[in-house]
This record gives sequence, C-alpha cells and structure tokens, in this order.
Amino acid sequence: MRAEIIAIGSELLSPWRLDTNSLFITDHLNRVGIRVWRKTIIGDRFEDLTEAFSSALQQVEIIFCIGGLGPTKDDITREVVASVLGRTLSMNEDALRQLQKRYARIGVSMTPNNRQQAMVPEGGEVIPNPNGTAPGLFIRHNDRLVFLLPGPPHELKAMVIDQVMALIARHHVASPLIYRHLKIASEGESRVDHLVSPIYQSYDDVETTILASAGIVDLFFYWTQPDDSERSGPVLEDLTRRVKETLGASVYTEGEQTLEAVTGALLRERGKTLATAESCTGGFLGKMLTDVSGSSDYYLGGMITYSNEAKSEWLGVDPGLIAAHGAVSPEVAQAMAERVRAVAGADLGLSTTGIAGPTGGSPEKPVGLVYIGIADETGSEARRLQLPGDREIVRLRSSRIAIDWLRRRLL
Amino acid sequence: MRAEIIAIGSELLSPWRLDTNSLFITDHLNRVGIRVWRKTIIGDRFEDLTEAFSSALQQVEIIFCIGGLGPTKDDITREVVASVLGRTLSMNEDALRQLQKRYARIGVSMTPNNRQQAMVPEGGEVIPNPNGTAPGLFIRHNDRLVFLLPGPPHELKAMVIDQVMALIARHHVASPLIYRHLKIASEGESRVDHLVSPIYQSYDDVETTILASAGIVDLFFYWTQPDDSERSGPVLEDLTRRVKETLGASVYTEGEQTLEAVTGALLRERGKTLATAESCTGGFLGKMLTDVSGSSDYYLGGMITYSNEAKSEWLGVDPGLIAAHGAVSPEVAQAMAERVRAVAGADLGLSTTGIAGPTGGSPEKPVGLVYIGIADETGSEARRLQLPGDREIVRLRSSRIAIDWLRRRLL
Repeated sequence: MRAEIIAIGSELLSPWRLDTNSLFITDHLNRVGIRVWRKTIIGDRFEDLTEAFSSALQQVEIIFCIGGLGPTKDDITREVVASVLGRTLSMNEDALRQLQKRYARIGVSMTPNNRQQAMVPEGGEVIPNPNGTAPGLFIRHNDRLVFLLPGPPHELKAMVIDQVMALIARHHVASPLIYRHLKIASEGESRVDHLVSPIYQSYDDVETTILASAGIVDLFFYWTQPDDSERSGPVLEDLTRRVKETLGASVYTEGEQTLEAVTGALLRERGKTLATAESCTGGFLGKMLTDVSGSSDYYLGGMITYSNEAKSEWLGVDPGLIAAHGAVSPEVAQAMAERVRAVAGADLGLSTTGIAGPTGGSPEKPVGLVYIGIADETGSEARRLQLPGDREIVRLRSSRIAIDWLRRRLL
Repeated sequence: MRAEIIAIGSELLSPWRLDTNSLFITDHLNRVGIRVWRKTIIGDRFEDLTEAFSSALQQVEIIFCIGGLGPTKDDITREVVASVLGRTLSMNEDALRQLQKRYARIGVSMTPNNRQQAMVPEGGEVIPNPNGTAPGLFIRHNDRLVFLLPGPPHELKAMVIDQVMALIARHHVASPLIYRHLKIASEGESRVDHLVSPIYQSYDDVETTILASAGIVDLFFYWTQPDDSERSGPVLEDLTRRVKETLGASVYTEGEQTLEAVTGALLRERGKTLATAESCTGGFLGKMLTDVSGSSDYYLGGMITYSNEAKSEWLGVDPGLIAAHGAVSPEVAQAMAERVRAVAGADLGLSTTGIAGPTGGSPEKPVGLVYIGIADETGSEARRLQLPGDREIVRLRSSRIAIDWLRRRLL
C-alpha cells in the first residue's frame, strides 16, 4: 500500500512555514509498512486541490488531505473531496452536536459558518477531534482510503494515533518496512558510495538510499520483497556486515542514535570525563554534546575562549605561543585541549580554533580552515580541516568532526 | 509569473527529512513578485519525476527541480528533464574541467561516476556550484524557465543568490510583493494578536499574517492592491507605527535581522563587551551569539559550567550558595552572571541555569524551569522562566529570552 499526503494552506507556500505534519504521519504509516509515495503542497484554491486529489486517487491507495477543514471560506477541502468523489455533502447531526458541545465548553458562541464543519460527504465517517473544533473525515471509495484531517499539529497527532491508524488497520494488514540504517561520520557521500556500491549492487532485493548532510552520511538498505520477508533477515545481515567491514570505524551506529549520543555512551561506558575549549565554534561543540539528556554524567563543561585574552587568561595558553603561531594553529589547538583538560580535571580535552567566515580569512589562513585538538593522559594532537560551506556549516562540521575524532579514540 | 518547486529524494518522503530549500527559494522569488503555486516532493523514481515535471511544465512558468544531481545511480534529475524536454544529454567539457578542479582542490580523487555530474542537456546552461561538486543547470524551454539545483542547502543557497536570480531577472520584470515585517521577542502569539488586531483590522487593503516559533512572533502586513502601489507606503507606515507604539520594546526589528544580530549591533554601538556563563544551555547561548559574523567585537567568550564543580572552581561561585539554593536558583544565576563578568573583565555578564529535561525535574523544580541572570556595573538580577516544549525547545527559548533581556537592557 502506498500513500500520498496533500497539505493545503497558502501559508505552506510562503517563505515562513513548512508542512511538518507529514513527518509524523509518515512515521506512523511506515511502522505498518505503508510508504509515502508523494507529498503535494498547495494553496486554498478549488482547482488546485481538485487536480491534486484526482491525481492522488489514480495513483495510491491511501490519501491524506491535511488542512482546509475550518469554518472560513478558504476552507474548501470537504467540498472538493465530495465533488471529486461524486458524493453529496449533508449535515451530520452527530457531528453538529459534538461541535456545539465543544464551542459551549470553550465558551465561544457558534457562528452560522461554524456549522459547515459538521458537513459530511455521503458514506463518510466522522473522526472526532479531541483538541479542536474541526472534526476529521474518513471515506472509503472503492479500494481507496481517504482521510481529511485538520492542520494544527496537536489536533492532527492525537487523531492519527488514536483513530486513523485503527481505521487503516481495518483495511490493511500491517507489514512493517524492513530496512537497515547505518550512519557514517567524517566521510564524504561519493567516497562512501564508491566504497559500498560494489557491495549493495550485488543484492537484487535491496534498494539503497544514501543521504548526506554536513559531515554525516546515512545509508538505508530497504528490503523490496515484502511477501518474502523471511529471507530479509539473513540477507540484510550479510549486506550490513560487509558494508561495516568496508567502512570500519566510520560507521558510528546501526540505528537512530546521534553521533553525540553514541560518543556520550562510549564516554560513560569507559568511565571517562570530557571538557571542551572552543574558539570558532563559540559554544556549538558544547551545545551539541549537551543536546544529549544525561550528558552531565561525562561532560564537565567547557570554555568558549573567543578572544585571545580568554585563551591565555582563562585557559592559561601561553600568549607567546599565540603570538608565534597565531590563534588558528595546530599548536594553539593542542594547547587549548591540554589546558582545558588540566583546568577541568577531565580525562579528555577537546578543542576547536579556526576561521568560520565569511570575514577574517587570509591567503595563508583561508575561511574554512579549522584546527581541532584532543588531549588525554598520553599527550595531545591536532588535526587540520579545510571545510567548505558557510559560517553555520563550517561550525557544524568542525563540531561534528571533533566529536567523531573523540569517538574513534574511545573505540 | 508562477513557480513550482519539485524536491527530489526518497529521504524527503521518510520520517527523517523535510525539504527546507523551498523556503529559501520562495523568499527570493517573492522578493521579485513571483509566487510559488505548488510544491511537490517525490522519490528518486524515473516515472514519478517524469509525471511531476510534465505536470509542472503545463502549469507554471518557472520550475525548480531540487536534488538528484549527484554522482550516484539514484541521481536521475538530469536524465528525466532531458527526456521530458526531448533534449539529448552530452558531456560538457567546461563543466568537467570545473569538476576536476574542484575535486583536486578538496584533495579527493575523482571516481568515474563523478563524471556524470558534467552531463548537460542540449541548450542547457551550467550554473557553477562554488560550494560543492554537482553543478546546477538552467534550461529555457519555450516560455518556461527550468532550473536544476543540487539539494545540499549551502550549495543551493549560494547558487540562488548569485546566479539563479540573475537568470530570472533576464526574463522577468520584478514587481516585488509589498509588505512590512515586524519581529517580536518574548511575547506569545495570542497576546500579540490580542493587542494588535484592533489596529490592523481597520486597514482594508492590508492582509495580516501572524506566525510564531519558539519565542519569536512574526507579523506580516501585505499590501493587497498591487495596482495601487503608490498608496501602500503611507498606509503601511501608519499601520506599523501604530503597532510598534502598542508593542513597544518587544519589536526588535522591522526587517530580516536575527535577534542575536540586533543585540550584537547594540553592544557594538554602546561599546560594551559581553561574557556568558551557561549551565542548562550548555553552549547554545554562546553558539547563538557567535552565529553573528564579527561577534568577536563585543563577545569575549564564556564558560559552560555544566557541573557544580565547574561553577565554583572556574567561575568562583560560592559552593555554599549552590548547596543552600541548588544550582537551579535565582541566586546561582545571579552569581554566575556576576562572576563571569568579573573573570572576563566584561561590561556585561549573562547566565542560564535550569532543567532542560526530559529527566532531572522534581515537583519543586519541574522540567522547563530556567533562571537567567544578568550582571552589569550596577549589580545583578535574575528572572524565572517556566518554559513549555522538549529539551531542544527549552534550551532554544532560554537562550533567546536571555539575549532579548540583554537587548532590552541596552535600549
């Protein structure tokens, strides 16, 4: 079974808003083996929804129309769907009573146009909305399942969890998507593909997706034979084992954990504590480490030594060293890592210093040049990075690569 | 002129990824008066892109296909577009040289499949990609403008700003949307609407949109009479003046600047320096302040005192104070701000301490309880926040409200 999600609302075509409901719906559909085939985002125009809904009806078994169920004249979803399906709309007395109750409870007087929210296409089923006024609708049309749901996320979510998935279960035997997900750090997308495509191409019943974002590569191996799911276990096992052998330590998880959570778990396991000293990342590294709930078990804290004075006065980095090599240098990166380790009394020190841009670069030290440093009881080391991307990306990548370096040290 | 954005990639149909590029493109199109009519999100399948692209070609004048330009076999955009437009693909020697240079510069060896990124449909123009390997493409087809752009946001953004908008300007006379945009911090959406709706409702030719996100409210006033644009200036001026009078210091900009950029500009203007001491935000506050290029002019640095030891040993917060009131207390927030100000020799100190969750809460100190502190030459002060939302949102809101508090102090 395949689904399409149609999100309706002019604000979703503005520069300010994204449809995020579809992620939630997709997650729940995937859990019972239904894939989303297309998402369409349109404004509140009769013709546009007519075209989108008609096209979806031809292509997929399950159609979600999200939004446009309210009481204003912009709310056209009910009408369009009834018209495309050739069903008349009529007032549903049950839905009207629910609506009246709801308005009474929130102490708002019901206007005549509020009543249109109780109109139901012939044969349609009302899906009560516990968190809002507009009820949802379910219509079975031949072998198609059509769901109309309100746009506000907290209304939609409650209805999907409690009611929509139960309605789907009536018509669909769940067969969850079978897949493996590997996450890879500090490697480029094309290098990963170059290394692993000879492997995955030799598996006929597996579809591979590679996804890259600022220093993280996601590899998904989907099993394409749902009717032959028994074979999937050994095949996917074999495939992921070979891929992991090839990529080695670059694979940081075979699941949904973040790099910082995996690294944090290793620190906890090894009983090690960490402190950070940041210049160009300005707190990003610390923020990322503390995105993980419970990170206080191993993360003692850090210093954001943005100025040279902070580097020497807070951390105790020798001002002569900064003068001799510049703040952006392997020497200073190492000294920062060593000093923050000592000052914090931590097992490990991690540092960043670089030129995030867009200004501050020079021919010798261009924008994107970052040194990361690591220190432990055996001494310290620095690595030179020359990173592409804008200020945000350079800072994000530096922080990630530093955390990944630490992770590899802990293995 | 109307545009459609087709985002291509199976990952965009997963529960893990959203198309965010379309927001950026929409913003730039709107500025020259082009509205986005539809967004379609599809997987890497030949037939699906063929259908979506063919449908768009019939409906709108400008079509963006985003993604699917990389070196893997999933990357089908070039092929599909060439096939629908009936144009042959051939190797572009110029593009190939650029690609070879790029790979050489980043020190990665070019694999054979990387070459396919230099294939160009007949009559197509290469759009160089300064931040990545896959170049973009521009094809004029009858009266349609077709743009193929790579998916990674930092690559796409640079290309849209520098090249795509110039290509569009060749074929389209800009008639920008007329609107005013006010940004408001530390106020809720319904309170803002309650205060300003009596004002904006008295303007017939203005359409108002209110959007809220994690402590920031955006107010948009759109002029609805494009044929009568002369009147728009005085009317929108009058409206925004009245709204600003009503909302006072809560309005932090009448433009596109971020809260941290506005606050940073004030610090620079006043000749003041700042240092931060963070507990629950773990670096987020420093990260946000240093998101602004040139922030080293006023931001000296900060301490991420995640553990109690760091609070007392690095900052010199009295351990007795922590023992008496707990680390999450107004007393400790004030002491942190005072101490970091003193240690850094800064004019101002800003601090956060709280319970970001999901664990660590108690009946007396629930998840979402955060104290922020500020210190200057006259002394220090703390504020209590009780914030809704998950860990990420609590940390984001705390950092924003702290920065906004500082901004209001500087006015």
